[in-house]
Amino acid sequence: MSETNSYELYYWPTIQGRGEFIRLALEDGGATYVDVARLPEERGGGGKAIVHILRSDSELRPPLAPPILKVGTRVMSQTANILQFLAPRLGLVPEDEESRVWAHGLQLTVADFADETHDTHHPIAVSLYYEDQKVEAVRRSELYVAERMPKFLKYFERVLRQNHAGKGQFLVGTAHSYVDLSMFQILSGLGYAFPNALSALEPELPLLFALKVRVSARPRIAAYLASERRIPFNQHGLFRHYPELDRHGDQPNGISGTSKA
Amino acid sequence: MSETNSYELYYWPTIQGRGEFIRLALEDGGATYVDVARLPEERGGGGKAIVHILRSDSELRPPLAPPILKVGTRVMSQTANILQFLAPRLGLVPEDEESRVWAHGLQLTVADFADETHDTHHPIAVSLYYEDQKVEAVRRSELYVAERMPKFLKYFERVLRQNHAGKGQFLVGTAHSYVDLSMFQILSGLGYAFPNALSALEPELPLLFALKVRVSARPRIAAYLASERRIPFNQHGLFRHYPELDRHGDQPNGISGTSKA
Repeated sequence: MSETNSYELYYWPTIQGRGEFIRLALEDGGATYVDVARLPEERGGGGKAIVHILRSDSELRPPLAPPILKVGTRVMSQTANILQFLAPRLGLVPEDEESRVWAHGLQLTVADFADETHDTHHPIAVSLYYEDQKVEAVRRSELYVAERMPKFLKYFERVLRQNHAGKGQFLVGTAHSYVDLSMFQILSGLGYAFPNALSALEPELPLLFALKVRVSARPRIAAYLASERRIPFNQHGLFRHYPELDRHGDQPNGISGTSKA
Repeated sequence: MSETNSYELYYWPTIQGRGEFIRLALEDGGATYVDVARLPEERGGGGKAIVHILRSDSELRPPLAPPILKVGTRVMSQTANILQFLAPRLGLVPEDEESRVWAHGLQLTVADFADETHDTHHPIAVSLYYEDQKVEAVRRSELYVAERMPKFLKYFERVLRQNHAGKGQFLVGTAHSYVDLSMFQILSGLGYAFPNALSALEPELPLLFALKVRVSARPRIAAYLASERRIPFNQHGLFRHYPELDRHGDQPNGISGTSKA
């Protein structure tokens, strides 16, 4: 359909962040799209392009925050919502409603996991610098590494294992879907932010780690990851690497004896 | 259709929590449903009913957490996902895809708002008691009251205002929808948890407060709220009232001069 030539993604131009889940779907689906804020300002790009949409007082359906997808005159927001819209158009989800509801529920759990991961470095407020909430971040991260990260990852491993039809390879049904792409992104981000904690869990997550390798080898994903379009992980995004928040080598499960900071 | 007679909601039986967004839709839509965990254990109810689903190692599509909706043999989870499934069946969303994508995006923003509100009393970990993270809760809440709560509420007020077709009465289009029900719930919860902060913002939120009154007067909602099916707010749910977290009377905007706890 003609709309596939007019996808415009609005997301912060210097980070992967939540926008990356959408970039991966657009790339893997072979969509033609414009990553608007990465264009130069003189061509309508830059962060200004996003702020312009957010501040519009004439927009009938104003979004609160990026990522935002424009398709012709339509404007939509919320990462999982955008993915749900794109997936059938890009061949990234099965046709039947039951599979789509299941896929979307998984994607929302991915979103919860991403939110909790973000809050390890911002447990008090997004308006404060990390340095101004570091004490709380250390305390939160210790429990995140010990409890939440294993809980989410073991859940997704279990989803793969119990999906007999997919032979442990796919989160949804018998074929690759947008949820697999998002899981690849989560695992990549955790490998950057919490390398020690993720390594310690790896033996318990064979299906997830195999999925990550398989997704990274998909031709369009491999090409994307090798391109300049893939922004490197950095200390401004959703996943940030602060060594003091990661698991320490001598901790059996991430909990030290003096955690009550 | 026959499935409307077989809705089974699985949610913790003693709190409103996230399940309440779904209860409100089922009630307002006039659905026949069973709130399974509120049945006695000898009839398959209680928290055990939920734990049984969560621990199943044979379920092909295992949920991570409640709320969970069963419809015949189908099992689905994630609040916004369940609402998206129910809404067209209960007449609580317009027919066209564009409206549904917009409604769902708003619902996901409601979910973000609910998550941030929950984390005011649990900024460090869900596994710790409030008392063990109270210092951090006070610090987080001060910024929540000063920044986040106004940001979200003014956004939804703006959505109402800019929805000219709905004359400021509906968040989506020209008629009542499930998103209006969820907004009613958010406003009710904030009135319980943060009464001072909400009162201070009320003059800036005329359309939202009118929406709350209108929703509470809908016959099925009014009947539900007056029934024993409506669990009262309490200190175990998503919205909790700790006076030390609310706005203090003499603070211009919720920020005190000695906030760096």
